[in-house]
Amino acid sequence: MNVTVRGRTRHYRTVTFYPTRKAVLLIELRRLPHEFKIVAAKNFRETAGAIHDMVVRGAGAIGATAAYGLAQGAFAFRGHDLPKFRRYVDTVCQMLKAARPTAVDPVNAMRKVRAAMRAGKTVTEQQQLALAAAEEFANEDVVHCEAIGRHGARLIRSGTKILTHCNAGWLAFVDVGSATAPMYAAQAQGKKFHVFCDETRPRSQGATLTAWELAQQRIPHQIIADNAAGHLMQRGEIDLVIVGSDRILGRTGEVANKIGTYTKAVLAKRHGIPFYVAIPLSTIDWKMKRGRDIPIEERDETEVLGAWGIPGDPHPAFSSRHPSCVTRHTYVRVANPASGARNPGFDVTPPELITGIITPAGIFRPKELWGRRHQLGLSD
Amino acid sequence: MNVTVRGRTRHYRTVTFYPTRKAVLLIELRRLPHEFKIVAAKNFRETAGAIHDMVVRGAGAIGATAAYGLAQGAFAFRGHDLPKFRRYVDTVCQMLKAARPTAVDPVNAMRKVRAAMRAGKTVTEQQQLALAAAEEFANEDVVHCEAIGRHGARLIRSGTKILTHCNAGWLAFVDVGSATAPMYAAQAQGKKFHVFCDETRPRSQGATLTAWELAQQRIPHQIIADNAAGHLMQRGEIDLVIVGSDRILGRTGEVANKIGTYTKAVLAKRHGIPFYVAIPLSTIDWKMKRGRDIPIEERDETEVLGAWGIPGDPHPAFSSRHPSCVTRHTYVRVANPASGARNPGFDVTPPELITGIITPAGIFRPKELWGRRHQLGLSD
Repeated sequence: MNVTVRGRTRHYRTVTFYPTRKAVLLIELRRLPHEFKIVAAKNFRETAGAIHDMVVRGAGAIGATAAYGLAQGAFAFRGHDLPKFRRYVDTVCQMLKAARPTAVDPVNAMRKVRAAMRAGKTVTEQQQLALAAAEEFANEDVVHCEAIGRHGARLIRSGTKILTHCNAGWLAFVDVGSATAPMYAAQAQGKKFHVFCDETRPRSQGATLTAWELAQQRIPHQIIADNAAGHLMQRGEIDLVIVGSDRILGRTGEVANKIGTYTKAVLAKRHGIPFYVAIPLSTIDWKMKRGRDIPIEERDETEVLGAWGIPGDPHPAFSSRHPSCVTRHTYVRVANPASGARNPGFDVTPPELITGIITPAGIFRPKELWGRRHQLGLSD
Repeated sequence: MNVTVRGRTRHYRTVTFYPTRKAVLLIELRRLPHEFKIVAAKNFRETAGAIHDMVVRGAGAIGATAAYGLAQGAFAFRGHDLPKFRRYVDTVCQMLKAARPTAVDPVNAMRKVRAAMRAGKTVTEQQQLALAAAEEFANEDVVHCEAIGRHGARLIRSGTKILTHCNAGWLAFVDVGSATAPMYAAQAQGKKFHVFCDETRPRSQGATLTAWELAQQRIPHQIIADNAAGHLMQRGEIDLVIVGSDRILGRTGEVANKIGTYTKAVLAKRHGIPFYVAIPLSTIDWKMKRGRDIPIEERDETEVLGAWGIPGDPHPAFSSRHPSCVTRHTYVRVANPASGARNPGFDVTPPELITGIITPAGIFRPKELWGRRHQLGLSD
């Protein structure tokens, strides 16, 4: 999507490939929202490192990054011996997979690239096919997000007040995003609406990434504490909730997403506010049978006990001078030092709280997914 | 309650009076949880300043502080002319009231002190009566909180997992607190239980003040992000919710409290978890007829856009060296700099979500309050 740097607006993708240098270009997400920076991973080892160190994160984005990383690795091979080349590519895949061992997207993305490579008869042909397949994977991610946008934009009218949680925006995909896709599409249709971004403690992806995206795209928005949505719903200030998901169970319609999603769904149900989940098809898990079986990661307690930010005066209009040593991204301990924390990273929302699932193939009720599994990409 | 400083445990009140110096001693709440410090307000102007600057906050605590401040002001008068003395005391009251113009507790506290002073026939007698009345006011606050604790402790068994929101602890009263009173009483009865403290963004009073209180009292507890309570309830990890309140409508049973309270009540209802509100009688508003009329303060957006804390390594075990210029209490900007925020400070919970109101006179259903208004202190 568009980013304005020093007054100049340009279109960027989260992940791209620079063919002449064989480099993967990534938006450095760890610097946002305070600094916009593109970093170049110059070889597949650096690309694996960028996935591991969370320079890039989000299902679609790390899938495309791994696909490009595999092409990058293929190009690094010198010689014409195909069996040797295949063993080399195996090593590349292992390393890219190990960068984020629990994620399924890099694995699926690399499987597609390797399948495409098989048509090549020489090392050079296979190298070219790898890059073409990686590009196709990235472009498909964009096409799917755009389709989510087309279907979801129908839910938004001028004047709609939307709540979203965490970041399921273009920074988590190659472009466009899932939960944000309907907003960007509605904006392109000339609709004027307002978005409330839950700050999404403890990692604050709503206050940092989603708010940054919407500001760049000039969509009117405000950040709220996670505590405030219930009050705003009571006062009639929220008309629609759209969130993303980390995993939807195709058999039950249960939705795993960032911690706090379930709470917003319970509140929306109480207030009769439609609650939608926007996802690409790759987010649907057709195997798992019960939401209770979804492993909920317990993350490091330091996330809850403090916050990351840029030190500064809360009212910079009055004073912006600070010691130079405190202008970098800094962790502050907020909580009582002797207290510990519980930090579940995700929760599971049951289907009866969800109005619809916005997919590239249309909007479905969560219980409809299984019946439409062939349309939604499950091959037997 | 007990505070351990450098290995030595002593009992403290949030507010006390040091008679020989005529000073009001206050726990400096703005330094907690990172530093425990008692400050002395040496005259009524400093006491008013401490209320204004939020050295002390919380209904019971600022009521007692204003009562002591009035006695302090009375002692500052030199001479024997009663009419002049009365005019002087008027000025003192005005200044103490103006320190927190929307709060009702300082006004009520000072009314009691002035009523008691009228029995004195000389300036000296009235000065002594003022101090005695202020002491009585503070002691009554403690007695009421202890009574809340006696009634509420019945709700807690060994093994109970309690959720609380914000800080309605002894730091908000003279001692003991309201929402914490049942916990302290249950602990004294030898019960072993666990408390989850909502961090309570944006001001984080749960992570700072409540967690500090519970740690000092050696009650097992953990801080959670405000987003996590729903998930814990789903998993059966919360048995009971106890919160405080800023205002309960005696006519309807509606409860105004820190933003996020309503959300926790909605979640508790869905999961069949009892939800209690603990209050002294002074919190009941017998006049207002509808919860919608309660003014909801919209606070400064910088609270949502950042956080206050002590800079440091998130894992101090690995490294604790930092430039000395960043060891003080620091504001960090977390959110996207170009985004704004909505920051409602309170919300209103309807009576159907509340299991009971724990008062010094017993536990009542919210709708019962009006029928028992005489027992609960409303004089016609």
